[in-house]
Amino acid sequence: MSDRLQKFRTERQRLNERVLATATTTTKRFFNLDTNCYKDGALPARTKEIAGLSASLVLRCDDCIAYHIIRCVELGVSEAEIVEIFDIGLIVGGSIVIPHLRRGRDILDELLAE
Amino acid sequence: MSDRLQKFRTERQRLNERVLATATTTTKRFFNLDTNCYKDGALPARTKEIAGLSASLVLRCDDCIAYHIIRCVELGVSEAEIVEIFDIGLIVGGSIVIPHLRRGRDILDELLAE
Amino acid sequence: MSDRLQKFRTERQRLNERVLATATTTTKRFFNLDTNCYKDGALPARTKEIAGLSASLVLRCDDCIAYHIIRCVELGVSEAEIVEIFDIGLIVGGSIVIPHLRRGRDILDELLAE
Amino acid sequence: MSDRLQKFRTERQRLNERVLATATTTTKRFFNLDTNCYKDGALPARTKEIAGLSASLVLRCDDCIAYHIIRCVELGVSEAEIVEIFDIGLIVGGSIVIPHLRRGRDILDELLAE
Amino acid sequence: MSDRLQKFRTERQRLNERVLATATTTTKRFFNLDTNCYKDGALPARTKEIAGLSASLVLRCDDCIAYHIIRCVELGVSEAEIVEIFDIGLIVGGSIVIPHLRRGRDILDELLAE
Amino acid sequence: MSDRLQKFRTERQRLNERVLATATTTTKRFFNLDTNCYKDGALPARTKEIAGLSASLVLRCDDCIAYHIIRCVELGVSEAEIVEIFDIGLIVGGSIVIPHLRRGRDILDELLAE
Repeated sequence: MSDRLQKFRTERQRLNERVLATATTTTKRFFNLDTNCYKDGALPARTKEIAGLSASLVLRCDDCIAYHIIRCVELGVSEAEIVEIFDIGLIVGGSIVIPHLRRGRDILDELLAE
Repeated sequence: MSDRLQKFRTERQRLNERVLATATTTTKRFFNLDTNCYKDGALPARTKEIAGLSASLVLRCDDCIAYHIIRCVELGVSEAEIVEIFDIGLIVGGSIVIPHLRRGRDILDELLAE
Repeated sequence: MSDRLQKFRTERQRLNERVLATATTTTKRFFNLDTNCYKDGALPARTKEIAGLSASLVLRCDDCIAYHIIRCVELGVSEAEIVEIFDIGLIVGGSIVIPHLRRGRDILDELLAE
Repeated sequence: MSDRLQKFRTERQRLNERVLATATTTTKRFFNLDTNCYKDGALPARTKEIAGLSASLVLRCDDCIAYHIIRCVELGVSEAEIVEIFDIGLIVGGSIVIPHLRRGRDILDELLAE
Repeated sequence: MSDRLQKFRTERQRLNERVLATATTTTKRFFNLDTNCYKDGALPARTKEIAGLSASLVLRCDDCIAYHIIRCVELGVSEAEIVEIFDIGLIVGGSIVIPHLRRGRDILDELLAE
Repeated sequence: MSDRLQKFRTERQRLNERVLATATTTTKRFFNLDTNCYKDGALPARTKEIAGLSASLVLRCDDCIAYHIIRCVELGVSEAEIVEIFDIGLIVGGSIVIPHLRRGRDILDELLAE
């Protein structure tokens, strides 16, 4: 098992602090919107995180995939459910998604082992 | 109101028939996988269509957005829920998604008017 | 000359009204941020619209390209300057940008003829 | 059958003339490179057009797909071969490629009917 | 010379095993289609790998580029031919492809040194 | 502080030399165009680098973002101005740009510390 999860968490926290310490009001407000749009509303937070994971997979962003897998696990999305979102990301986005699926699987394995 | 919905349905059906009539086994099997991955499983079909809509928004594909909005409405996803998926697509994908949001709204208006 | 510019303006206005009339607070706030980030700040609005045009070209979004060309012309960016932004979009984004360059040129021709 | 092929040819020629009449040296030189890189070299032109078609499919650019299908047919690439390139575009790029596959099929049908 | 090639091979094998050990039928079937679509058919496997490399370059996926370079070399595609596919990837995809071209060159150098 | 900047410079130089030593005329000419299109013209080099940074942010290419931040700093673009380009990249490209914004901020911090 790699230390992919720990590296992601450390770097994300260190650099988010720098970004926000130096950001304009526009960027700060965008970060607020980004947090708010995944909260319970007409749709539950859980479904929104699933939608966020699906979007991150097809855009092939490792950090975003890691983040939404972490949030899905926190909100009780099961491994069987996450694996079905991997299916959708793969079918919509094609084989180009596979390297990100591999790294997403690695993050999920580390999370489940915690 | 435009006739965007009708044009989409007609062209999609006409050309899907041509694609499948001339396709290899690989393409035919892919079309089957594409259908199957949105069926009820660990996650209900409804949640999977929401994930498909979110992925289509950030990849900025008008036809895919139209298709998943139609499927969401068929499966009972409410307008309030769809509008929250629009939020996620917009926040994840940025202002470049807005033209597709406009055309997705148009499709949704036509569907709700039917 | 086509009527590309008029079609863009009409559809954009009609559908933006529908989007905003039905949108959540998240989407409305995002639209505000989108407007605000192009205003005079450390960088003048003119330079920001140039940056917006460059981003739109490489993301290959016809409507966004049309919008930023219109804004550039309104803010006094000259044709010679716009054509150099076309260069940057083309070199960064490659030949896949060419169809969008063609349609952007068409919009620019219509604007200059007004 | 639609008139997709004719519309593509007319608009492409009209606007390429405008782009080149108003372009900088950078853009003109890029257009030359774009033409030259598909000529016979270590690889035959035919294989290069196949590579260009595959790239256009996964980047989901209808005009580029149309252009490379036309060039493939001119260079004697058979329908059976083109359909296998469609497979590769679909598998690499995923279901998001399907709307472009449909329109590419339409162009190919019109070309074969000529 | 870096150890990019070895790292790619080790991680790819380790994580593909995990993905397949935990995957749904959909993902397993997709992996089969992905393998099959590069086999000899109307087009020889060699040409299909060239098309796969071209698609991977413009989608800017380092792992996919590495994989298709390895397969091209295994199937006897010469360095001169691979370099011409790099041209097509660069011209179609633009300067944004250059960092991936650099890393692809590194992989190719390591392969040729083996 | 990481050593992101130094790693980028070393790897970029080593591999650019390999790419150019083995490249075709097409690739060499493209590299020339890529250099030339950022030179003073109707628009000053400074504005062109801003446009290049904006394009790199929305295409989510870490190396390209690093390169254009370095060039912006060399040409006297202030931190306040760069942060406003980060805004535009974020608003146009959405939350998927955030991981690249984090790494761009890291590069900028290292540059300002030099």
